[in-house]
Amino acid sequence: MEIPPRVRWMQDIFGEYQRYFTFLKKVARHEFRTNGFTRITTPILELKSLITHSTGDGSDIVTKEMFDFTDKGGREVVMKPESTPGVMRAYLEHMLEEPQPVYLYYIEPHFRYDRPQKGRYRQFHQIGAEIIGEVDPILDAKAIYIMAQILDGLGLAGTYTVKINSLGVAKEREKYLIELASFFENKKHLLDETDLARLEKNPLRLLDSKNADVKELLKVAPKMTDFLKKDSLEFYTKVKEYLDILGVKYEEDHTLVRGLDYYSHTVWELVDGSGRTQDALGGGGRYDGLAKSIGYKTEVPAVGFAFGAERLIEAMIERGVQLKNKDKIHLYIMQLGDEAKKLALPLNIEARKKWLNSLLGLGTPSIKVQLKKANRVGARFVIVIGIMEAKKWICQLKDMDRGTQIEMPLDNVLDAVIAEVGTDALSFYHPSRDFIISDVPMSEEKMRRVSMD
Amino acid sequence: MEIPPRVRWMQDIFGEYQRYFTFLKKVARHEFRTNGFTRITTPILELKSLITHSTGDGSDIVTKEMFDFTDKGGREVVMKPESTPGVMRAYLEHMLEEPQPVYLYYIEPHFRYDRPQKGRYRQFHQIGAEIIGEVDPILDAKAIYIMAQILDGLGLAGTYTVKINSLGVAKEREKYLIELASFFENKKHLLDETDLARLEKNPLRLLDSKNADVKELLKVAPKMTDFLKKDSLEFYTKVKEYLDILGVKYEEDHTLVRGLDYYSHTVWELVDGSGRTQDALGGGGRYDGLAKSIGYKTEVPAVGFAFGAERLIEAMIERGVQLKNKDKIHLYIMQLGDEAKKLALPLNIEARKKWLNSLLGLGTPSIKVQLKKANRVGARFVIVIGIMEAKKWICQLKDMDRGTQIEMPLDNVLDAVIAEVGTDALSFYHPSRDFIISDVPMSEEKMRRVSMD
Repeated sequence: MEIPPRVRWMQDIFGEYQRYFTFLKKVARHEFRTNGFTRITTPILELKSLITHSTGDGSDIVTKEMFDFTDKGGREVVMKPESTPGVMRAYLEHMLEEPQPVYLYYIEPHFRYDRPQKGRYRQFHQIGAEIIGEVDPILDAKAIYIMAQILDGLGLAGTYTVKINSLGVAKEREKYLIELASFFENKKHLLDETDLARLEKNPLRLLDSKNADVKELLKVAPKMTDFLKKDSLEFYTKVKEYLDILGVKYEEDHTLVRGLDYYSHTVWELVDGSGRTQDALGGGGRYDGLAKSIGYKTEVPAVGFAFGAERLIEAMIERGVQLKNKDKIHLYIMQLGDEAKKLALPLNIEARKKWLNSLLGLGTPSIKVQLKKANRVGARFVIVIGIMEAKKWICQLKDMDRGTQIEMPLDNVLDAVIAEVGTDALSFYHPSRDFIISDVPMSEEKMRRVSMD
Repeated sequence: MEIPPRVRWMQDIFGEYQRYFTFLKKVARHEFRTNGFTRITTPILELKSLITHSTGDGSDIVTKEMFDFTDKGGREVVMKPESTPGVMRAYLEHMLEEPQPVYLYYIEPHFRYDRPQKGRYRQFHQIGAEIIGEVDPILDAKAIYIMAQILDGLGLAGTYTVKINSLGVAKEREKYLIELASFFENKKHLLDETDLARLEKNPLRLLDSKNADVKELLKVAPKMTDFLKKDSLEFYTKVKEYLDILGVKYEEDHTLVRGLDYYSHTVWELVDGSGRTQDALGGGGRYDGLAKSIGYKTEVPAVGFAFGAERLIEAMIERGVQLKNKDKIHLYIMQLGDEAKKLALPLNIEARKKWLNSLLGLGTPSIKVQLKKANRVGARFVIVIGIMEAKKWICQLKDMDRGTQIEMPLDNVLDAVIAEVGTDALSFYHPSRDFIISDVPMSEEKMRRVSMD
């Protein structure tokens, strides 16, 4: 029997890669929280109809690159390819009575049954945010600003370009698309099959063309922003004004459209300028129409964005961003024999209480094996407790950097190690600072809020 | 058209509930990291065969309560009902050459197509850990100790009981099961249908019976621990010895078995003693046989445990554990008119740079509407910038607690607020402390470690 392998194009995240992922989440969480965002976790599964409706046309085509199936209760479900439709659904169910707008962020796995290619996984992770329930161009600008802050926080300052565009409202877009289609009508011979299909079904997608001829043509083609009427133009102008106030540099890109069809007004991408490709690190836009597309009675103002976590980590590594290791093992406690082990175990616990990261040697291996392990985990200090030491309540303390060794009473050894590694290196934290235990029963209102039912 | 609802028995986690979840993850992460564990994230999907093999019998029955389906590439896949088989698979693929044992933890959504009932969700979250690759009873004791530390960290000290048992090795269990079955053979009339099926297929499951008669009988039935031979008994004795050294109080429970079949030697549960039920908050055990069950050439020593996140949060709420709100909004910045807004936006950003949590009034609503909002978000201070204030570069500062209002230059107002809320309340953090940007290209070895391919 062979070991069933990993599902293809899905990854185990651990070790060094996981450390980047952890740092990424920490930076994003901090930026979100200090800007008044709270986290939301929507289920991995959504009804297929939510996803198909979110595209506005309700067709099944959108699910062709998804993990969709029928569950044991006969529900057609999809492993979510993105979180925005689910967050909007959750907003409409739970948050209409909250102070508006609501500021939400998420860190979630998403799923696409994509053609496999380097750097794209069928389970990938996105860090994103949505601001729902009130309209103001300041929110579009702030969303872009927060994205830039996160990239700067990751050490990516100066490596990316902010590109923005406005798609106006549906009516304006309709007029523009007629003009755009008519512009390409007598240039069909220059279009490949994909672009011809786009011209037929959704000419806006032509702006996304990878075809060099089409890209050249787009420079002289009609521009969406020329079709914006007074309100849309004013909205777009204000977004740019606020970006200036916030000190965010941007480029206007008239060919910028997003891969999803529910956007209106402002759209943007943060594009990697350092690498071989002009890949988007993340992007976002306004999607006032989504609520109505999925069945709500009116439009609901909303603006949001997302980063691809794997893409960000790739960019950090390209940039040379190297993380400090806060989980460094300070101390390896080596024991030789059963009696030594009984002293080593409480010492290991005591070390932890003093915020030293310590590892305990296990089993009954040789000094040589344990020393090798201490080396591999990068422990600065090794405490050796042998049979003689156990009897005398002492130990040998080895400094692996300096290659020295001294004998010491067990009672003093941890403080001696702390004096050497420095208190800065220790992981002070005590959960009890974060809560109180109350005798007063929770109010019904609060109980309701902590209940998911 | 109706809004497609949430998938039944799956939850949106946000607001107050999400804050408990966040705290829970923080406490667990801290405990794991200081004990030398690093995080692993295995994919949500695993091949169905991995899950069926992990039970040891390869039957399909185990997937009857799972979300399983055939993907577009014809693979039979399962949305993982637990993480242990996936972590073992990942260990065998990536970590055999690491220093042993490897200490891994995870915080993951899991999925069961269960009969719906209060407090059980079809997507639920588990926080767990696995120690794989070296055998030592000290690891079993430490795993239990870490679980207890996490519960204490959550404010649950004194509310739970640690129950332990030993299931020995397969040979010992076989002998025991023959005795157990024969004990019940002439008492079949006391068994209900479920228990009769258990007697037939897997008599060990009888220990789990909810039937009062059976529970009574189990008091005089043969006990697993009486069938342990020298090695198993010594192993179990040492686990208990180390628990004593670690100061973990425990009860031996001869009827304790775990819901999964891959366990051997030590098994345990941490049982809520405060509530109406004797529900397990979490549990774990040794599963040396799992690696072989899923197709590896030999057994691999392993011990692990998991908590149900939803269950822990329920226990915290029952206990009266109330979280301090670190995301409290200190400051609401109210603007009246376009010119005021252009001053309010940079003030909002400046506040953030000074680590004040501030919210900015949006749109062009009335003073009344904005004040109401400031109240609802619980802002201690409100800055008002009207048309006159904007011209004079001043503002009104309202203290909502004291009901006072003073006029102030814009330049001083943030420091005035900080002086009142106190620096303890601020969220100091700067990501740049956590990394360096290196000009030296990464070593190939390191590149390999940060690449998931």
